[in-house]
Amino acid sequence: MRNNIVVQKINRVDESIRNGLAKCGVATVHEAQGQRGLLASFMRPIQEGTSVAGNALTVSGVAGDNWMMHVAIEQCQPGDILVFAPKTPSSHGYFGDLLATSAMARGVIGLIIEGGVRDIKVLREMCFPVWSKHVFAQGTIKETLGSVNIPIVCAGEIVNPGDVVLADDDGVCVVRRQEAESVLLAALDREANEEHKRARLAKGELGLDMYNMRQRLSDKGLKYV
Amino acid sequence: MRNNIVVQKINRVDESIRNGLAKCGVATVHEAQGQRGLLASFMRPIQEGTSVAGNALTVSGVAGDNWMMHVAIEQCQPGDILVFAPKTPSSHGYFGDLLATSAMARGVIGLIIEGGVRDIKVLREMCFPVWSKHVFAQGTIKETLGSVNIPIVCAGEIVNPGDVVLADDDGVCVVRRQEAESVLLAALDREANEEHKRARLAKGELGLDMYNMRQRLSDKGLKYV
Amino acid sequence: MRNNIVVQKINRVDESIRNGLAKCGVATVHEAQGQRGLLASFMRPIQEGTSVAGNALTVSGVAGDNWMMHVAIEQCQPGDILVFAPKTPSSHGYFGDLLATSAMARGVIGLIIEGGVRDIKVLREMCFPVWSKHVFAQGTIKETLGSVNIPIVCAGEIVNPGDVVLADDDGVCVVRRQEAESVLLAALDREANEEHKRARLAKGELGLDMYNMRQRLSDKGLKYV
Amino acid sequence: MRNNIVVQKINRVDESIRNGLAKCGVATVHEAQGQRGLLASFMRPIQEGTSVAGNALTVSGVAGDNWMMHVAIEQCQPGDILVFAPKTPSSHGYFGDLLATSAMARGVIGLIIEGGVRDIKVLREMCFPVWSKHVFAQGTIKETLGSVNIPIVCAGEIVNPGDVVLADDDGVCVVRRQEAESVLLAALDREANEEHKRARLAKGELGLDMYNMRQRLSDKGLKYV
Amino acid sequence: MRNNIVVQKINRVDESIRNGLAKCGVATVHEAQGQRGLLASFMRPIQEGTSVAGNALTVSGVAGDNWMMHVAIEQCQPGDILVFAPKTPSSHGYFGDLLATSAMARGVIGLIIEGGVRDIKVLREMCFPVWSKHVFAQGTIKETLGSVNIPIVCAGEIVNPGDVVLADDDGVCVVRRQEAESVLLAALDREANEEHKRARLAKGELGLDMYNMRQRLSDKGLKYV
Amino acid sequence: MRNNIVVQKINRVDESIRNGLAKCGVATVHEAQGQRGLLASFMRPIQEGTSVAGNALTVSGVAGDNWMMHVAIEQCQPGDILVFAPKTPSSHGYFGDLLATSAMARGVIGLIIEGGVRDIKVLREMCFPVWSKHVFAQGTIKETLGSVNIPIVCAGEIVNPGDVVLADDDGVCVVRRQEAESVLLAALDREANEEHKRARLAKGELGLDMYNMRQRLSDKGLKYV
Repeated sequence: MRNNIVVQKINRVDESIRNGLAKCGVATVHEAQGQRGLLASFMRPIQEGTSVAGNALTVSGVAGDNWMMHVAIEQCQPGDILVFAPKTPSSHGYFGDLLATSAMARGVIGLIIEGGVRDIKVLREMCFPVWSKHVFAQGTIKETLGSVNIPIVCAGEIVNPGDVVLADDDGVCVVRRQEAESVLLAALDREANEEHKRARLAKGELGLDMYNMRQRLSDKGLKYV
Repeated sequence: MRNNIVVQKINRVDESIRNGLAKCGVATVHEAQGQRGLLASFMRPIQEGTSVAGNALTVSGVAGDNWMMHVAIEQCQPGDILVFAPKTPSSHGYFGDLLATSAMARGVIGLIIEGGVRDIKVLREMCFPVWSKHVFAQGTIKETLGSVNIPIVCAGEIVNPGDVVLADDDGVCVVRRQEAESVLLAALDREANEEHKRARLAKGELGLDMYNMRQRLSDKGLKYV
Repeated sequence: MRNNIVVQKINRVDESIRNGLAKCGVATVHEAQGQRGLLASFMRPIQEGTSVAGNALTVSGVAGDNWMMHVAIEQCQPGDILVFAPKTPSSHGYFGDLLATSAMARGVIGLIIEGGVRDIKVLREMCFPVWSKHVFAQGTIKETLGSVNIPIVCAGEIVNPGDVVLADDDGVCVVRRQEAESVLLAALDREANEEHKRARLAKGELGLDMYNMRQRLSDKGLKYV
Repeated sequence: MRNNIVVQKINRVDESIRNGLAKCGVATVHEAQGQRGLLASFMRPIQEGTSVAGNALTVSGVAGDNWMMHVAIEQCQPGDILVFAPKTPSSHGYFGDLLATSAMARGVIGLIIEGGVRDIKVLREMCFPVWSKHVFAQGTIKETLGSVNIPIVCAGEIVNPGDVVLADDDGVCVVRRQEAESVLLAALDREANEEHKRARLAKGELGLDMYNMRQRLSDKGLKYV
Repeated sequence: MRNNIVVQKINRVDESIRNGLAKCGVATVHEAQGQRGLLASFMRPIQEGTSVAGNALTVSGVAGDNWMMHVAIEQCQPGDILVFAPKTPSSHGYFGDLLATSAMARGVIGLIIEGGVRDIKVLREMCFPVWSKHVFAQGTIKETLGSVNIPIVCAGEIVNPGDVVLADDDGVCVVRRQEAESVLLAALDREANEEHKRARLAKGELGLDMYNMRQRLSDKGLKYV
Repeated sequence: MRNNIVVQKINRVDESIRNGLAKCGVATVHEAQGQRGLLASFMRPIQEGTSVAGNALTVSGVAGDNWMMHVAIEQCQPGDILVFAPKTPSSHGYFGDLLATSAMARGVIGLIIEGGVRDIKVLREMCFPVWSKHVFAQGTIKETLGSVNIPIVCAGEIVNPGDVVLADDDGVCVVRRQEAESVLLAALDREANEEHKRARLAKGELGLDMYNMRQRLSDKGLKYV
């Protein structure tokens, strides 16, 4: 756990796998990997209807200081998502339209931040997607070092550099880089299975019957009165 | 207060009364019944501009377990709204697009949940309205019994099976089944009255004059300086 | 700090200056005045994409009582923004469509409230912008006096009557009346400067280079590995 | 659900049963009645090491108004516990040393309040036990009616007048009046059983063995590595 | 509202007046000055049973930076209380045993901080009283200027340098310097009055009678059933 | 990131090193390792004045289920501290006096839990120290597997099995197993240094002089007025 380093070379996940995960969505992928990987429910999108899956470019810094964001952008490649967590809870606005302009110029496809963002009207117009804990205009300083591309805890979940971070209207999920392909397969399976169930339920079949729940409910003692 | 029961027969409120209440809206109805019946302010809609009033189909279960949702759907009739509260605070995503598909097939017109929902993009596309405490993809289990159609406390307010639950952009309000008709009359009165006031205020008349407040303010000691 | 007074005459800021500030936006203005003046991040708009800057018409009252709102409206002039804070934290719905109708008839251009509002669907349709801590239908009473146009603390920030309050999707910022013109000049400078930076960043230039950060980062001990 | 009434005659639970419940404690009693009846975890004692069980004397009033407390005290009998919940969340200090003096003179043995208390140093010295959501000196008014001895929701749980409310360092639990005796028997059973388990565990026996958990863990797929 | 200044000369309140206020306590003083002046209820003491009233020595700094504390201590005189608020919400531990040692050497009699403190075991042993929002060991930096002895907002209330800050187990209250003497007189009056009431209530007289509430309750419509 | 495993063999840190860390305390150790390792500020002790440092025995389970606690206790050795985090936020009372009895019989010296505990009066009497997010009597179930001795995130910080967890009145800090010895040396250095500073400050020397801050403050633009 060394401090104040920038790891320049990280392994990433292929675009095709990431796009597959994005299409499955957060709820399905999270189930497909055993109900793991969700960031806390306070991480909310500033836009509606957007789904992305990118390679995590992790950034750690002290509360109220966004200096390492500038350091991080140089390390970005197309398909990356910036993932930032301050060392102490903070609502500062670490990221606005200038950083978004710079990030988009590097091919960055989104921001996940356990902190605040600002200029959100412009960010929405730019179609730069953000999931954050706060919206707050409070400015930051540039005085203290942090690290780029080390494992961090963001919103209660470990995110390693190069992991896939997947985000949509339901929130944010992380998929370990080494498991991304197998999780995608499991998610696709699950999705196919759900399509079939959806059709049956839409016709009025009950989950109680489709999932064979009646006997077990009765065994546990459920009484109909 | 028996545990683990499903009450199959409940009394409901006529559609015409419910629709009348929905048209009056949460703020007016709550006032019309003496400023009673509001669920806590953390209950927020996942959509904008929707107003519904349905018969409460109440569901109680342990935190992180949505088994009783499946049991509840069998009991639903057209015009019902599912009202769920876990026994302990929880942000789990108890309800997603499959349950919504099943609920809509039964004529359910909405969900009120002191917990989380997921697949909200699809729920919005399906026009299945939800008021919840959380949006969170976290999956649940199916291990522990609960009850259906017993009186519950949801977001700080008692909801009995068959009560009218009314929800719009302002939040959620419950109207006792036995009082639904008289509350509707009081709400319509209030609305008529408000229409008249609105016209006067729009012309520039002051509330101070329209409500005859000046004397009482002066009596209490308000000073203009 | 006298209680229960209405100050009838306050100084205001010219429309041209206010409009200039509104155009610059909360994030820029807050930076231009030395990262000061932001109200707490829990103050959120009920609408999207609206930006206003008005003269603060301040209102102080006890929790759950909106009587002073009616008193305040008589004091309003075109271009004013009502700024309300209860003496104790409260989620009541102090303001709805009737008060909005009355306020708009006086030329009021918005509401900033460390409390709740209701009838928000109608408020949105009326295009009456609101930034609030809560959305809640809970009604209020009219029993206890408060004051109008005294300095108040709203969402953690002092607001004096006649100060400019500026609000957009990022939140709410207060600019002291006496400083409004100089802050506008500083904000315009900053904006011009940002336009130039935005163009360079969009072409791929790095903040690290544009802001000459590399040497200082190295001096502080940042290591690239 | 009538408003503004004082119910003068309620049924209560015998002291011997209440004392038995107090001795068993909140955690045991809550388990003995099927994990039901707990008030929310934000209800905390202002003192340490005190355990009480009294007859609920319920009080409902608007936020910031403690008028009904005075009305309630007249209805109190020895062994009662005042249970207060405002209709809207509030941190006001509804209760201080004068009300405690008056309550103690009537034989009241404690206060449960989903709101604030003040003069807590004196309350501790008087040995008047309190479980509250807040400690706050903010004064209240006496303007609006409420009700005494109607069913209320306090901290998320229904409390009926005459129910037993039981409180200790773990929090607050309500036991329905009609079930108090049977719950006491179940709690005593549970306690006896726990005494035996405690002795075995203290000698080093494992819960895994004492509860025969190993086979079920293995069946569910737990792997030791 | 200039930034980054240290005001070296402030007016203070005599010890006898401050001691009188401390003896009356927060709840009484707050009432005596018209229910004004309380800091938010999240400001809690780290010790029990201590009551202090000192001259406010105000400190403003950015989140996570305690540099101005060192600047402030030089300005302290015996009987002062340090009052600190960061510009943005933060839980950092701005103050520990070394700063307390230094403060006590200058005669400082307490700390009020809308942030965190650490080393609280030692602070308790040193009998240095603290009211804070957080207890947290997180260290700070010393990089950014702030101001000393300017008016600040701490926990929702304006505190001017030289105002009396009064704190006990109920929380924290500020009394304007210019009003301190008159507020003390009002508080003493109130206290004398309360002593008399306490005696009557202890004998069993009801507040309903002592305060002549019965008629007004009846007029408002309270029904006994 | 495999699910549902129990790692039986972990490396631990010697008692002498752990005791040294406990003596230095959370605030000092956290600084000594570069302001890293603190768990969130909501982790508070149920007792006062206790300091412990143990080997982390990590436990992960679903919300509302304490089954894995029983599994974990078998893996404990003297000097271990149980560290539990549910996969989803929850206030359940996962741990009470029976589990504490069993844990103490195995030599466990404390519990760190991002959840609730109960029977806290007995836990205090047993001198079994606990740092928790909640105190709540709510019971749990035993239905779903989790894991023991895998890396977990507890209160925002990664805890690996065998890391040292250090806790006192200031909160909880984790020290990586491999760094425990070097961190202890750094902490002892820091402590020695602080002793010297404390003596100078107690004599009235100012931090401004002792730390040579005056020039840098002046360079940054601080003005004395």
